[in-house]
Amino acid sequence: SPTPVVETMESDPGFLVAVEEAKAGFKEGGVPIGGCLISKDGKILGRGRNLRVQKGSATLHGEISTLENTGRLPASAYKGATMYTTLSPCDMCTGACIMYKIARVVIGENKTFVGGEEYLKQRGIEVVVLENEECQGLMKKFVEQKPEVWYEDIGLG
Amino acid sequence: SPTPVVETMESDPGFLVAVEEAKAGFKEGGVPIGGCLISKDGKILGRGRNLRVQKGSATLHGEISTLENTGRLPASAYKGATMYTTLSPCDMCTGACIMYKIARVVIGENKTFVGGEEYLKQRGIEVVVLENEECQGLMKKFVEQKPEVWYEDIGLG
Ligand SMILES: [Ca+2]
Ligand SMILES: [Ca+2]
Ligand SMILES: [Zn+2]
Ligand SMILES: [Zn+2]
Repeated sequence: SPTPVVETMESDPGFLVAVEEAKAGFKEGGVPIGGCLISKDGKILGRGRNLRVQKGSATLHGEISTLENTGRLPASAYKGATMYTTLSPCDMCTGACIMYKIARVVIGENKTFVGGEEYLKQRGIEVVVLENEECQGLMKKFVEQKPEVWYEDIGLG
Repeated sequence: SPTPVVETMESDPGFLVAVEEAKAGFKEGGVPIGGCLISKDGKILGRGRNLRVQKGSATLHGEISTLENTGRLPASAYKGATMYTTLSPCDMCTGACIMYKIARVVIGENKTFVGGEEYLKQRGIEVVVLENEECQGLMKKFVEQKPEVWYEDIGLG
């Protein structure tokens, strides 16, 4: 009998977009972290990637960039929304998801870095970690090549 | 005998800059919240104001704007730094101060809104609230004139 196909969130359109963003960032020489915000009814509200290197930005992490590209919206637009991010969110991005009352955060991997997952849960946000190999691979390559940029990005170097 | 001069942080250069930024934002029709980041040795590292209205931005709150204008810096530059902000920081801006390990957050007022003050303290950051009348007055006028913009800005409307 055939191997059962296990449906996971790794095939969610929002996750695929987040990975595309991370890969685009890697190609640009940037920190390869991407995000995508999906509304309750499945629409893409915004997508983005970390722009520390590309824009010399201290705040445009993958999730902040995604929220910025989403633009100004009323609170109702974030209700029931999911933030897909290729890496466990830092404290800043954790706080941004809490401020906008995003319902769920789906994380590509948390092997490279564990951010505010516990605090998200404490504040009532659902957290899913995929342990996606592609996300892990991108970060592994980046941290090996440019460790100083990575540590700067999370306020550690 | 002369009335003793009580030195308060309301005359700190960083606080005066933050208030200037808030007033400039008010004049532009924006959310009147300003920030200023001061290094351990008293230098202005960056200043900024909320740009939701001016730039259609969902993430450029006073403190994020200040960190963005500060630009890319190594972790050592934030060591011992003080973030001055005219209003109690929302969860996003709270998280940003935690991520960069800012030592102290000096808040103009928390009558209009109480943000992540307790969480900042839990994460080892010193918090000072000034209850400054000018900051309160700016926010009071703004919330009366444009309540929908204010509630949108903090993810409540
Ligand atoms: Ca997998
Ligand atoms: Ca006062
Ligand atoms: Zn982040
Ligand atoms: Zn804020």
